[in-house]
Amino acid sequence: MTHNNEPICALATPPGTAGLAIIRLSGQNCFTIADKCFNGKVTLSEASSHTVHYGTILLNNTVIDTVTATVFKNPHSYTGEDTVEFGCHGSMIIVEQILNTLYNSGARAAEAGEFTRRAFLNGKIDLTQVEAVADIIHSSSVIGAQTAARQLLGGFTKKLELLRNELIRLCGLLELELDFTEQDIEFVDRTALRNTMNDIADLCTNLAHGFRAAQILRSGFFIGLVGFPNAGKSSLFNALLEKHRAIVSDTPGTTRDFIEESLFIEGIAIKLFDTAGLRSTEDAIEMEGIQLAESIIEQSNLILVLNDCSIDMYHSDNLLHGLQQRFPQTQFALIQNKKDKCTIPLENSNTLSISAKTGDGIPELKRYIADCLRPNIDGNQDVLINARHAMLLQQATQHLHNAGKTLEIGLSNDLIAIDVRAAVRLLGEITGQVTGEDILNAIFGSFCIGK
Amino acid sequence: MTHNNEPICALATPPGTAGLAIIRLSGQNCFTIADKCFNGKVTLSEASSHTVHYGTILLNNTVIDTVTATVFKNPHSYTGEDTVEFGCHGSMIIVEQILNTLYNSGARAAEAGEFTRRAFLNGKIDLTQVEAVADIIHSSSVIGAQTAARQLLGGFTKKLELLRNELIRLCGLLELELDFTEQDIEFVDRTALRNTMNDIADLCTNLAHGFRAAQILRSGFFIGLVGFPNAGKSSLFNALLEKHRAIVSDTPGTTRDFIEESLFIEGIAIKLFDTAGLRSTEDAIEMEGIQLAESIIEQSNLILVLNDCSIDMYHSDNLLHGLQQRFPQTQFALIQNKKDKCTIPLENSNTLSISAKTGDGIPELKRYIADCLRPNIDGNQDVLINARHAMLLQQATQHLHNAGKTLEIGLSNDLIAIDVRAAVRLLGEITGQVTGEDILNAIFGSFCIGK
Repeated sequence: MTHNNEPICALATPPGTAGLAIIRLSGQNCFTIADKCFNGKVTLSEASSHTVHYGTILLNNTVIDTVTATVFKNPHSYTGEDTVEFGCHGSMIIVEQILNTLYNSGARAAEAGEFTRRAFLNGKIDLTQVEAVADIIHSSSVIGAQTAARQLLGGFTKKLELLRNELIRLCGLLELELDFTEQDIEFVDRTALRNTMNDIADLCTNLAHGFRAAQILRSGFFIGLVGFPNAGKSSLFNALLEKHRAIVSDTPGTTRDFIEESLFIEGIAIKLFDTAGLRSTEDAIEMEGIQLAESIIEQSNLILVLNDCSIDMYHSDNLLHGLQQRFPQTQFALIQNKKDKCTIPLENSNTLSISAKTGDGIPELKRYIADCLRPNIDGNQDVLINARHAMLLQQATQHLHNAGKTLEIGLSNDLIAIDVRAAVRLLGEITGQVTGEDILNAIFGSFCIGK
Repeated sequence: MTHNNEPICALATPPGTAGLAIIRLSGQNCFTIADKCFNGKVTLSEASSHTVHYGTILLNNTVIDTVTATVFKNPHSYTGEDTVEFGCHGSMIIVEQILNTLYNSGARAAEAGEFTRRAFLNGKIDLTQVEAVADIIHSSSVIGAQTAARQLLGGFTKKLELLRNELIRLCGLLELELDFTEQDIEFVDRTALRNTMNDIADLCTNLAHGFRAAQILRSGFFIGLVGFPNAGKSSLFNALLEKHRAIVSDTPGTTRDFIEESLFIEGIAIKLFDTAGLRSTEDAIEMEGIQLAESIIEQSNLILVLNDCSIDMYHSDNLLHGLQQRFPQTQFALIQNKKDKCTIPLENSNTLSISAKTGDGIPELKRYIADCLRPNIDGNQDVLINARHAMLLQQATQHLHNAGKTLEIGLSNDLIAIDVRAAVRLLGEITGQVTGEDILNAIFGSFCIGK
């Protein structure tokens, strides 16, 4: 990565019309550039850090806007560089003119994530904190945003550092022993060594397991509605959303594309998918819908199998069992629909019974969904584990298990140390102490401009 | 108006996802409320004005986000009150949580325009500057935004003050003379008095005439495309926009609703209207389209009458003359379309000839539109006159003319002074020195939340 500090600028607030917009300028010559554009009582180059100044922005001697300019002196800024934040009126016409003024004065447009990338390269935040910033901004749930906010404070980093330092200490002792091989001295008790490695491997595994919960907090809890044609999936979809979204008709096979909508239950975003009815069909369009339904089942956290109990309570049992066998990882729940049309009493059944049409049983179903959801997100405290973390944690665990086996069969210390060192490096990759350019590009590429 | 300074808060930047969002808190106990929510090294109540501080926002002991808090001490803030601006991550979930924290700590949600209303009531800005703020934010052209930015600096206010002070001086002299009626002393030379009143009346009239230009800078230059059915209006509409927007077919009467789109020519927003073809018809839907077309003509700054020259160069002449008679205020231009199908040479004609289909002549037409546009916006310097200003300026002019007549027919000074005083009051209403509650409500009601 070319680590330069060219002056860059971008709109940091969302585009649109509002009272206020903030334009961020950061890098070398930041204050000189700012002073070329800014006309106030105070020269920004001479202002103290963390102070705000009123003035106007001039372009070719024309006043563009009355602004505030906030001065942050390196290293006490978001990026760690000299930074000025201009607060102007929230109009895209004003914002574009101010950006043009800054371009004319020597700054260039910042790339997506470039401010945060500089914060990382200047050691202001580590990689888990970089990822926390993205998760705070994009989280679809309150708990997710709060967890990411804690991650930004560095709790996860500290936890990883403790594990990493312990492994480095063990490695050091193992390698020290090598120098004393002939004396046959053991600096580390072998049982204690194995226990420590096992404990750390377990901690890594537990952290990696947080991925599923984090995924729910980040993107929502995915619920698919499946069932035979005309079981009332679209009616239930609308009833849960409390709006008329999916087309409902008595003709089986009405829904072809799957439909996706969001709602909130207990502060967690729910992504609800209505799917095509599952049945044998020769119709090519319907066939495609059924294939889509199956891909939805694979991705979902919970599948509600809807049964039309006015036909028969056990009408969908074979379908349910078939799906459970095909998708053993997925959680399924059988829901009896059309209870208003049902002549046989359902009371003895363990399954939830509802009428999507009348709304009967819908609040109970929502509570049931919340009960299914809660165990999935409990215990997630200071970090939103992402796919990158989970992969590195699993690899570190694997190396620690290997080291354990090497130890068990009584091989030499240097062979044990190779795996322990590998685990140390993998944990270091999580915080970005050792991270390749390609990984960084992937992480910062997902950022928005201005961050 | 109940002028209170209850603590109020709102998101000041546009809603959406971005690096940064700003929440503004202003009013009594502002710093106490801010300190209840903010946890940093510095207590905000004790911080100096215009300084920025890092910290976290806590809700029920849970960290919501890492933020900056900028302190503005009364009267040195936008509102003139104690103000804190929190810079948080640009996520609506974060913003809502921080607002909830502030509500819990004693602030209430700000109404639309409430921050700016307080700035006005606290004498930070006058009414023309309030209107400039709205025009900066909503202006659809660069020149409009720049003019509003100059208006915000108070240029218009100063100009009005000069006129108003001159009238107040004249009034004073006229009223002074009344005390010396018996001595028959003239403090003001009658010719000079009349000249001054005429000059001020002319200045007011000129300012009022700026309304049309300001309207164009604010909302765009309105161009209507009219003509007989199948003259190629929708083709020209698409050609000017450089995209396929209107449905084009060979069937006359294809366009029924009018279609509106925007483009920019020389930095000015153009609102382009495609209309139904004008012809006698019995079809009720088409009839309605034709009535709509006529209302478009009334509102437009320029009407392009499109003639199909492959039929006859003079085919639309009667239509054009009829429209010119019906709408004497409107500017019309005859455009010869389908020049690619035209067999007779058009070179001798003064009218522009184009082919909407092939794009031939479109650049020339855009230049022609720019030429029509320019005189409409020239000479507009330091103010975007709005309907309220124009009305008050016209009324002031009327009173000054009345005063002139009273003077001419030799009536008493106090009768002259009545009209001069009225003009003084009307000019004062423009800046808000004398303004009713209803006017203020109308002005601030058009603001967005957070301004």
